[in-house]
Amino acid sequence: MGYKVAIALGGNALGNTPEEQIKAVKTTAKSIVSLVEQGNKVIIGHGNGPQVGMINLAMETGHLADPKIPAMPFPECGAMSQGYIGYHLQNALRNEFDRRNRNVPVVTVVTQVLVDKDDPAFDDPAKPIGAFYTEKEAQEISMKKGYQFKEDAGRGYRRVVASPKPVDIVEKESIRHLYEAGDVIVAGGGGGIPVIEKDDQYVGVPAVIDKDFTTGKLAELVDADVLVILTAVDQVAINFGQENEKWLDKMSMDECNQYIEEGQFAPGSMLPKIEAAMAFVESKEGRKALITSLEKADDALAGNTGTWIE
Amino acid sequence: MGYKVAIALGGNALGNTPEEQIKAVKTTAKSIVSLVEQGNKVIIGHGNGPQVGMINLAMETGHLADPKIPAMPFPECGAMSQGYIGYHLQNALRNEFDRRNRNVPVVTVVTQVLVDKDDPAFDDPAKPIGAFYTEKEAQEISMKKGYQFKEDAGRGYRRVVASPKPVDIVEKESIRHLYEAGDVIVAGGGGGIPVIEKDDQYVGVPAVIDKDFTTGKLAELVDADVLVILTAVDQVAINFGQENEKWLDKMSMDECNQYIEEGQFAPGSMLPKIEAAMAFVESKEGRKALITSLEKADDALAGNTGTWIE
Repeated sequence: MGYKVAIALGGNALGNTPEEQIKAVKTTAKSIVSLVEQGNKVIIGHGNGPQVGMINLAMETGHLADPKIPAMPFPECGAMSQGYIGYHLQNALRNEFDRRNRNVPVVTVVTQVLVDKDDPAFDDPAKPIGAFYTEKEAQEISMKKGYQFKEDAGRGYRRVVASPKPVDIVEKESIRHLYEAGDVIVAGGGGGIPVIEKDDQYVGVPAVIDKDFTTGKLAELVDADVLVILTAVDQVAINFGQENEKWLDKMSMDECNQYIEEGQFAPGSMLPKIEAAMAFVESKEGRKALITSLEKADDALAGNTGTWIE
Repeated sequence: MGYKVAIALGGNALGNTPEEQIKAVKTTAKSIVSLVEQGNKVIIGHGNGPQVGMINLAMETGHLADPKIPAMPFPECGAMSQGYIGYHLQNALRNEFDRRNRNVPVVTVVTQVLVDKDDPAFDDPAKPIGAFYTEKEAQEISMKKGYQFKEDAGRGYRRVVASPKPVDIVEKESIRHLYEAGDVIVAGGGGGIPVIEKDDQYVGVPAVIDKDFTTGKLAELVDADVLVILTAVDQVAINFGQENEKWLDKMSMDECNQYIEEGQFAPGSMLPKIEAAMAFVESKEGRKALITSLEKADDALAGNTGTWIE
């Protein structure tokens, strides 16, 4: 009974303030605890876009205002976001289990994720992070720190970092130990703290790893049956918003490729989710991916909704 | 061969900036990996005084300067510091194991620590955190948020929070699972994220838990033989700085009590370390505590230096 499930939660769904996040994780916890009660074994990855942006902005603002506050590199801001989000998630999950009189250990693992230092993404950093600057300010910071900046939709200049693919989870043995012991695990937060190998050592780099791909790696390492990618909609659509709009119950790999070629999925939104789903399905015979909403996750796993990719 | 060891690292030893911390954890990692190579099984707790102070200050400064940055409660700042310090520690430990061709999993667990909501410490908050304010600013914030402030040595007013004793580690089962699997674990960072029980739910509270006491709790939960409390000196002294100064190889519980009564140990410095050591030694027959420096930790565990409390 039940699946081995890796769930990718969106950072946007977690809100912009600690109060919003505490409220959001309570809803998340109810859905996830229900999945566990239905016999599924769960590991959770999550995004951190708004949260690491906020932490990075606070650190930059603090550093400019007060010399006692050091400049904080981006990987360290990501590590902070794992503590911040992981604390709220594990607190809400534990409380929800307690409310249902179930003693299930819940744990957040601070997670480094290895990326390839030759990943082509490093040649063209495109992911905006942190504060907005004027062109002059951006040039000055760029000269001083070597950061790259891009103009952001008329709102000013923002630092951009690369978004390389995850290669491996550094803490994989520990995550596997916890999974085998039956713990509900939060890991790979924000896609993980990105590290490269340099002289046989792991070294942090400023980058943003896609959380759906990282959760796919978590799914592979625990040999999950299903990668569940949560999004704002219950199902994936083609011809979205048009007269011939069609919501999909399932997609074969061929259909995925065809729809991608047709440009059905928005880059930076549904497209990377489809790609992460495909990467997991292709990684081993019998693996499936499911794209659906948090609200419908249990119903979708029971086969009643969501878009299944097989 | 070897002991089961819980090690308490000082937050001050980790430096004030990310660069200082990266440098400090490399030294720490060398000592700890040597202990593991000598056959000891290690779990690590650590302080976060300078780090959580810096994060809290950055968040306050950012929030005042930019309305997009939300006010960040103190427990959440502590959670961030666990991610920040844990990342650096686990990165340095893993790299040091790799350098010695040893494959030992290293993992940081985001840790909530239960405190008693009726702990007398809550009646008299005394631990200063965050920024300095004028008397007028302090009064305004106090009115608005209910924070308590105290005048700090002529330098201005600072918020004070309670320092309750740890009662239990919320993530204890997960920590035990990792310990049994042979992982080197970083947990209870900064003494843990303090939570109280309220309507059968864990709720974060602004407080600072002493990291030596929390590491003692970690030591109890893995049934450690020795609680090692690291400090700036190789041994504990009585009549410190005086003509009859005496460095101690060991102390019985009676001697501990006698020296405490004589006022030999500075409150907020050596005294809480002695008290945490005593609490662990008293928790079960055969348990020992060792107070020494990071540099001498392996030599002390071998019985050649340090102050043993039995």
